[in-house]
Amino acid sequence: MHEVISFIEAHRARYVEELSEYLAIPSVSALPEHAHDMRLCAEWTAEAMRRAGLQNVRLFETGGNPIVYGDWLGAPHKPTVLCYGHYDVQPADPLDLWTSPPFTASVRDERIYARGASDDKGQIFMHFKAVEAHLMGSGCLPVNLKVIVEGEEEVGGKHLEEFVRGNKQLLAAEAAVISDTAMFDRGVPSICCGTRGLSYFQIELRGTATDLHSGSFGGVVANPGFVLAQILAKMKGEDGYIAIPGFYRNVRPISAEERMDFERLPFDSERYREELGAPQLFGEAGFTALERLWARPTFDVNGLSAGFTGVGLKTVIPAVAMAKVSMRLVPDQDPSEVEGLFESYLNEIAPNTVDVRITLRHGAKPWAADVTHPFMRAAMRAMQLGFGAQPVFAREGGSNPILATFEDVLGLPIIMFGVGLPDDNTHAANEKLDLSNFHNGVVAAAHLYDEIGKTR
Amino acid sequence: MHEVISFIEAHRARYVEELSEYLAIPSVSALPEHAHDMRLCAEWTAEAMRRAGLQNVRLFETGGNPIVYGDWLGAPHKPTVLCYGHYDVQPADPLDLWTSPPFTASVRDERIYARGASDDKGQIFMHFKAVEAHLMGSGCLPVNLKVIVEGEEEVGGKHLEEFVRGNKQLLAAEAAVISDTAMFDRGVPSICCGTRGLSYFQIELRGTATDLHSGSFGGVVANPGFVLAQILAKMKGEDGYIAIPGFYRNVRPISAEERMDFERLPFDSERYREELGAPQLFGEAGFTALERLWARPTFDVNGLSAGFTGVGLKTVIPAVAMAKVSMRLVPDQDPSEVEGLFESYLNEIAPNTVDVRITLRHGAKPWAADVTHPFMRAAMRAMQLGFGAQPVFAREGGSNPILATFEDVLGLPIIMFGVGLPDDNTHAANEKLDLSNFHNGVVAAAHLYDEIGKTR
Repeated sequence: MHEVISFIEAHRARYVEELSEYLAIPSVSALPEHAHDMRLCAEWTAEAMRRAGLQNVRLFETGGNPIVYGDWLGAPHKPTVLCYGHYDVQPADPLDLWTSPPFTASVRDERIYARGASDDKGQIFMHFKAVEAHLMGSGCLPVNLKVIVEGEEEVGGKHLEEFVRGNKQLLAAEAAVISDTAMFDRGVPSICCGTRGLSYFQIELRGTATDLHSGSFGGVVANPGFVLAQILAKMKGEDGYIAIPGFYRNVRPISAEERMDFERLPFDSERYREELGAPQLFGEAGFTALERLWARPTFDVNGLSAGFTGVGLKTVIPAVAMAKVSMRLVPDQDPSEVEGLFESYLNEIAPNTVDVRITLRHGAKPWAADVTHPFMRAAMRAMQLGFGAQPVFAREGGSNPILATFEDVLGLPIIMFGVGLPDDNTHAANEKLDLSNFHNGVVAAAHLYDEIGKTR
Repeated sequence: MHEVISFIEAHRARYVEELSEYLAIPSVSALPEHAHDMRLCAEWTAEAMRRAGLQNVRLFETGGNPIVYGDWLGAPHKPTVLCYGHYDVQPADPLDLWTSPPFTASVRDERIYARGASDDKGQIFMHFKAVEAHLMGSGCLPVNLKVIVEGEEEVGGKHLEEFVRGNKQLLAAEAAVISDTAMFDRGVPSICCGTRGLSYFQIELRGTATDLHSGSFGGVVANPGFVLAQILAKMKGEDGYIAIPGFYRNVRPISAEERMDFERLPFDSERYREELGAPQLFGEAGFTALERLWARPTFDVNGLSAGFTGVGLKTVIPAVAMAKVSMRLVPDQDPSEVEGLFESYLNEIAPNTVDVRITLRHGAKPWAADVTHPFMRAAMRAMQLGFGAQPVFAREGGSNPILATFEDVLGLPIIMFGVGLPDDNTHAANEKLDLSNFHNGVVAAAHLYDEIGKTR
């Protein structure tokens, strides 16, 4: 590894120049006017993979943006790793909140600012540089490697799943590595070992054919805005416990070991509360904040609308009231089971004074890693070597449908090898990546392949 | 009265022509681009009053649209009546819902369609024609009459109150007559003897400084959308009883006589439910629909907003949730007392996980007529004579701040002498006035002055 690390140290400045070029392509998948940029960016990605020494690099056409594939399969007796990333980025709006233009990388205070710096161009590019360092420094990789970089992660990644389902042989591997998340905190490298699932609904309550004058009709009909409040209030108790019958049936209890792991993490709840600007933190009674965030399900209102919401007053009984609500799920909850429980309960508690319609349903599975897997241990050692600090196992409160794709379709254990930081402003203005995290990440990724290689 | 009624019968066709001219002026007080039309309409009103034979007709300038005044004071020993109406109208949007243009009166099926036909040009014009018939038919009026027609009723009528406060001597009278409402039903003339008051609030709950990702933060902070639902659900029970402590303290019980009066009215609740398109009627347990509408207070949600309300799903914990809520009040509730009760209760039940702000407060007093007043009896006889049917005492569920102005500032009993119909589409597309109601209304108004005159 000595040559590999020396190679990386010697090329730091060039990496930043190349990454800046990558970040300059406005590959915004959500906006049709960037269709040409998407292809440019896919081609740039392919070229970067070739320059890193990957072979068989090609673009796979999909119904949407192309998927870039490349591999290096010169280590016959070693494990095969599938590395995933995405070259598309979030829209940059609102532009006026950016200190420097989103598609002109700007280095300030040892951070590189641009849309995609952390999510995910910087993190996938880190793997290209780790591969290059191995192939240029030692002439080979310590594992067999397959790399896929998609262009639709920020818009739901529908074509990726199709591609994976249709190319199981091509993508066959022993583990997937995904670098598309943040580590626990600055100076605290982490491997993400769980994400929550999701059960999302839009419900509409209709009381009358049209909005009514609340003076002329107040007192004779149910008010769907009020009935909505009554229904929502019955979904969760004052103690934060979700009241949907059967909801907790398959919630995996937090083990004593996990509790201790969580407690050991440096988490300052007062600082956290202040950063969020909340008068008080709040959650299910009997659990710590991190437990509630990572290992307990939630019920949240994501949107509400009814009646008159403009300036001033309008005395109206809304004809319709709408809520978007969602539940975060934890292992071993199943979104389709939760959907059934939610809908039964909703129908049970809704009064017959309103018509109830569910107009949107969306589900995503929760995911949990096997932290005892030898590759997970290898990943922990690589993080330690790259960042010079003891890594921790952390989790994500959010959901990631790609995990289910790799786990269910390809049957792969997943290594969430994220080197972003919680303050990277992904999906917001002034997205950035700390250059120390990028450089340490290249070193850590180089070690990751080495450590996984050593397991056989 | 014979000459008076004959005169009215002889001029029916001309009345409709003149009214059509009045309705053609787009006097929309809410829209600044109609400022010139407002003045035109005030001048047209003044000219119509002069043509009817009223004297001292003049425009009073206000900070907004002028108020038109005229009088006839030639009956020294008779009562003095103040007749009120408004020449401004609601906006006509959305135009595409109108069968004929809103500012070109169109007579179809013995109804005159135009914005303002019922609310209120048709009804104040009815009084002009009753006055004209007396003065042309018999040379004098059976009462002293003062008429004011304002141009800001549809935008809050702020300048009217100023004008009334500043001109108490000019407006001194023994009763106010207002024709700006509907009668109970087609063929069921009525005198409105009560309106409800109003207590209206906008509340905002803030949980955090910004919207948060519901995956990354779900479980650690209170969701203001959910807390709003919890708070609203505590305002009213499942039985429709309002839970604000002390709220019912000053609610005047419905007397046995009033109950019987209400029961006698032709009210088909199944037809009513169908017309509203409601799966079920609903209201406070233990009261009939009319009792709940006219003599019991309400708590309604008028508007809700929080988080993401567009198409699709966004996994957000809203920073802020907003509700507009209002209570209809009945005698002897006082809006300022109710405001205090509401705010205390809100502060009591709001958890300390959110910041609560009340960003709008508005109150209006309930009103109840003394149905034994001799002028009220006179009004009932006039309705009977005009419509050839037994009139009833009815109420309005809505609020009317003008009543408080006349009652509190001028100390006048008020006669609500409305001849519109519940299906007149005031404030909606295809506003109309039944021509039979208009003609019977002119006759009834002529009798009203006669019957009031006879009381002395």
